[in-house]
Amino acid sequence: MASRPGRPRASGDPYGERDTRQDVLDAAAALFCTVGFTSTSTRSVAERAGVRQATIYHHFAGKDAILLELLLGTVRPSVELADALATATATDPADARLWALAHADVRLLTSGPLNLGALYVLPEVAGEQFAEFHAQRDRLRARYDELAAAVVPDGSGAEQGPLVLGLVESVILRRRDSDDLDAGAVADAVADGVLRLLGCDEQRIAAARTAAAALV
Amino acid sequence: MASRPGRPRASGDPYGERDTRQDVLDAAAALFCTVGFTSTSTRSVAERAGVRQATIYHHFAGKDAILLELLLGTVRPSVELADALATATATDPADARLWALAHADVRLLTSGPLNLGALYVLPEVAGEQFAEFHAQRDRLRARYDELAAAVVPDGSGAEQGPLVLGLVESVILRRRDSDDLDAGAVADAVADGVLRLLGCDEQRIAAARTAAAALV
Repeated sequence: MASRPGRPRASGDPYGERDTRQDVLDAAAALFCTVGFTSTSTRSVAERAGVRQATIYHHFAGKDAILLELLLGTVRPSVELADALATATATDPADARLWALAHADVRLLTSGPLNLGALYVLPEVAGEQFAEFHAQRDRLRARYDELAAAVVPDGSGAEQGPLVLGLVESVILRRRDSDDLDAGAVADAVADGVLRLLGCDEQRIAAARTAAAALV
Repeated sequence: MASRPGRPRASGDPYGERDTRQDVLDAAAALFCTVGFTSTSTRSVAERAGVRQATIYHHFAGKDAILLELLLGTVRPSVELADALATATATDPADARLWALAHADVRLLTSGPLNLGALYVLPEVAGEQFAEFHAQRDRLRARYDELAAAVVPDGSGAEQGPLVLGLVESVILRRRDSDDLDAGAVADAVADGVLRLLGCDEQRIAAARTAAAALV
């Protein structure tokens, strides 16, 4: 999926703005995940993307802004799904909504050729310039906590919230160990595991899985 | 816990060899976890440790060898415990042994002032020079798989092995989010969660927790 210089531009975007932006993101992602963030210069991103360095600065304020956009891509779709599940489908059981969220989140984190979640632990990501990423991830964490609390209303569910998010995000570490994960099977296993972690029995998990399919 | 130049040397080690080696490891760990691995030179490690650069090369072949030793420190104690639990205490129930291993592993990964597990996802760590670390971690993974299979002998336990290790190692990601984790409470919650993930009910988990206390 790494972009090649000079590839044909999509129609409907005659100046190739969208493609160029995506080429820069793809090139930066490949370099950040293989060479490392610190060792990657905007110049090397430009070379890999097949664009001039000035073109990068036309689209992004700099290397941090590129990393921020890559990080947001690993969390924003899950936040949007969590928000949609929290409002539109409040009549559906919480276990089905949690199964659906965990499943989609694992699919997102295991999608694409690069393990972008591994960038979470970069020392640089602790900085203020990544506040938007942390805010989105805090929001996602809060949604997991809410759903876990709703699945186990006796109060122990809320305590399990961090374990639930941990189990979902552990696929980031698993991708480091194996580059041929069966993403669909892993997503099923993790989503089932999330409910098992909350004490649901197999019958309830099977029902949640079926109900989740109608939700997304 | 960061070492300071010129601190008093322990007795029984008149040349301070052991302390110097540890000072280098401490300084390197602090830099790898804050500045990043790539941006850290052996010179900056030497400066932080308060030793000459040549002294580093007296103890380590180079930066990779320092990182290897730090990585091994995050996994070797757990492998040793897993091996001991697999042989000496085979009469104890598998759930107690798994609880004890998960608990100790989480304590190890949350111990010390630095989140060394975050170094697992460095692109560089995929290299051949870290084969010993990967071999140790593969061995630990196999022990988790064995124990999970023994806790749930119907075959589904073995499938859950990767989730179990994932839940344990997810504390690495949690440490990034919060620098004041209650390590003891987290270890209890994760070890309980590991058994819950395998379908154990609360009574069985409580019994495993009690039995585990006698094991380590």
